[in-house]
Amino acid sequence: MPKAYVLINVELEGGREVIEGLEAIEEVKEAYPLYGVYDIIALIEAGTEQELKDIIGQKIRRLDKVRSTMTMIAM
Amino acid sequence: MPKAYVLINVELEGGREVIEGLEAIEEVKEAYPLYGVYDIIALIEAGTEQELKDIIGQKIRRLDKVRSTMTMIAM
Amino acid sequence: MPKAYVLINVELEGGREVIEGLEAIEEVKEAYPLYGVYDIIALIEAGTEQELKDIIGQKIRRLDKVRSTMTMIAM
Amino acid sequence: MPKAYVLINVELEGGREVIEGLEAIEEVKEAYPLYGVYDIIALIEAGTEQELKDIIGQKIRRLDKVRSTMTMIAM
Amino acid sequence: MPKAYVLINVELEGGREVIEGLEAIEEVKEAYPLYGVYDIIALIEAGTEQELKDIIGQKIRRLDKVRSTMTMIAM
Amino acid sequence: MPKAYVLINVELEGGREVIEGLEAIEEVKEAYPLYGVYDIIALIEAGTEQELKDIIGQKIRRLDKVRSTMTMIAM
Amino acid sequence: MPKAYVLINVELEGGREVIEGLEAIEEVKEAYPLYGVYDIIALIEAGTEQELKDIIGQKIRRLDKVRSTMTMIAM
Amino acid sequence: MPKAYVLINVELEGGREVIEGLEAIEEVKEAYPLYGVYDIIALIEAGTEQELKDIIGQKIRRLDKVRSTMTMIAM
Repeated sequence: MPKAYVLINVELEGGREVIEGLEAIEEVKEAYPLYGVYDIIALIEAGTEQELKDIIGQKIRRLDKVRSTMTMIAM
Repeated sequence: MPKAYVLINVELEGGREVIEGLEAIEEVKEAYPLYGVYDIIALIEAGTEQELKDIIGQKIRRLDKVRSTMTMIAM
Repeated sequence: MPKAYVLINVELEGGREVIEGLEAIEEVKEAYPLYGVYDIIALIEAGTEQELKDIIGQKIRRLDKVRSTMTMIAM
Repeated sequence: MPKAYVLINVELEGGREVIEGLEAIEEVKEAYPLYGVYDIIALIEAGTEQELKDIIGQKIRRLDKVRSTMTMIAM
Repeated sequence: MPKAYVLINVELEGGREVIEGLEAIEEVKEAYPLYGVYDIIALIEAGTEQELKDIIGQKIRRLDKVRSTMTMIAM
Repeated sequence: MPKAYVLINVELEGGREVIEGLEAIEEVKEAYPLYGVYDIIALIEAGTEQELKDIIGQKIRRLDKVRSTMTMIAM
Repeated sequence: MPKAYVLINVELEGGREVIEGLEAIEEVKEAYPLYGVYDIIALIEAGTEQELKDIIGQKIRRLDKVRSTMTMIAM
Repeated sequence: MPKAYVLINVELEGGREVIEGLEAIEEVKEAYPLYGVYDIIALIEAGTEQELKDIIGQKIRRLDKVRSTMTMIAM
């Protein structure tokens, strides 16, 4: 099952809102705020590669208050 | 006592203002402008982990002219 | 023939538009969306060093929805 | 419950061995090989902050073939 | 067809040798030395995701003089 | 004589303007557009540490079209 | 008084040893292990710029188990 | 005249030796030790692109105590 971790930077006051947005997406299996270079990590599992791509590009990157994303595909 | 160093990038002309904002926060024990990749460093000490998190998320990241932060938790 | 790979970050919802903009530039020989730190990679081939510089500075960096570019010159 | 994601770079041929080493540590709840800047991600859950620190410093960083680690503490 | 760009850093005097090693791998469609943060870029095309993973992990990362790799999967 | 190299990122179409702004500052001894992670490099020489700091903070960082700067102090 | 923060990466099992080495240097005013991209932070204060440079180059960088350092000069 | 800045990281105790090695290369027009992410910067000017490439690959990268280099070509 295609799986990816997405590291997310958010607007300075947007952490809670983005976490809630992520939790409302069915394919997001984990979502935590982080200390460090990135503000949030999310684990995504999708049925196909195409679905994975769509969830990241169409849903996660379009959440309000997301500033940038960095996706790491699990092999 | 939970402790963290926060590395801060600021708006191009915002250095002095952010330093002053930091110095007004009781839990900020040091705050200096830097040369290099980051513009400012601040040392935070709080009574609990939760307090530390709140000071960074609710106070420091909401200072005017802060562009982004990178937090390093001291072990 | 001077050649460069340009790694591009785009506005969160700008991936498709930038890919189309790149494909319309004759000297762009490849352009793919990526997972990872960068959103898009493009391979540019130009007749001269000056031309290469102009395509990157005048065409690619001016595409709508491009946020930043990082150019690697092939030796 | 204290939780951290550890991003790991391994010796060039060490991926499988490090994954197996991670899976043998009880507090490692997930461990996947990745494409991108980091080779492996692991999710650690421990009973206390001190335990979390010990697992990372005494167990994970001492696995054979680990080259470097970057830890992100979940808030 | 699964495709990935691999950015490679090599031992200080290993550039030519790694380029030759890459050119001997059938699935490597391009390989150039670069100026900048990375020393070499290679474009890989494989029949399946599994094959792509094997070529990177078993062939490219095991070439003599390769120091580290950073893989960007084309969507 | 205190000396620093400043690596500068500029707005996408701002390269020429920033170079001209830099060349108008007496203490800027070199200024070139670059390929790679940074868009421009400038070498600054000042009479004192304080002067160096002021030129970077008050003049260079306030040039129109500068997006961010990274200063490396020469020892 | 010239001041610098030095961010240090250490050999995988070298954290405690480097902290002890730092604490034995008079000009090191703080030294903590960190979570994140860097393993240790140290604050250095010296009488002169030259002294600061010598402490970093001759003492800190020569501590056993130090892998690399990144120095941020306080303005 | 082709020109490049090379940012160099050196073995922990190798700074002086690399600076001396650089100063002995005719095409190296400047070489300074730095505070920050990189240890040394050098400015190279060569008669042709090919010469520039050879000086970096055959001379600078082969200096004893050089650990890695990052080259930025001036446009």
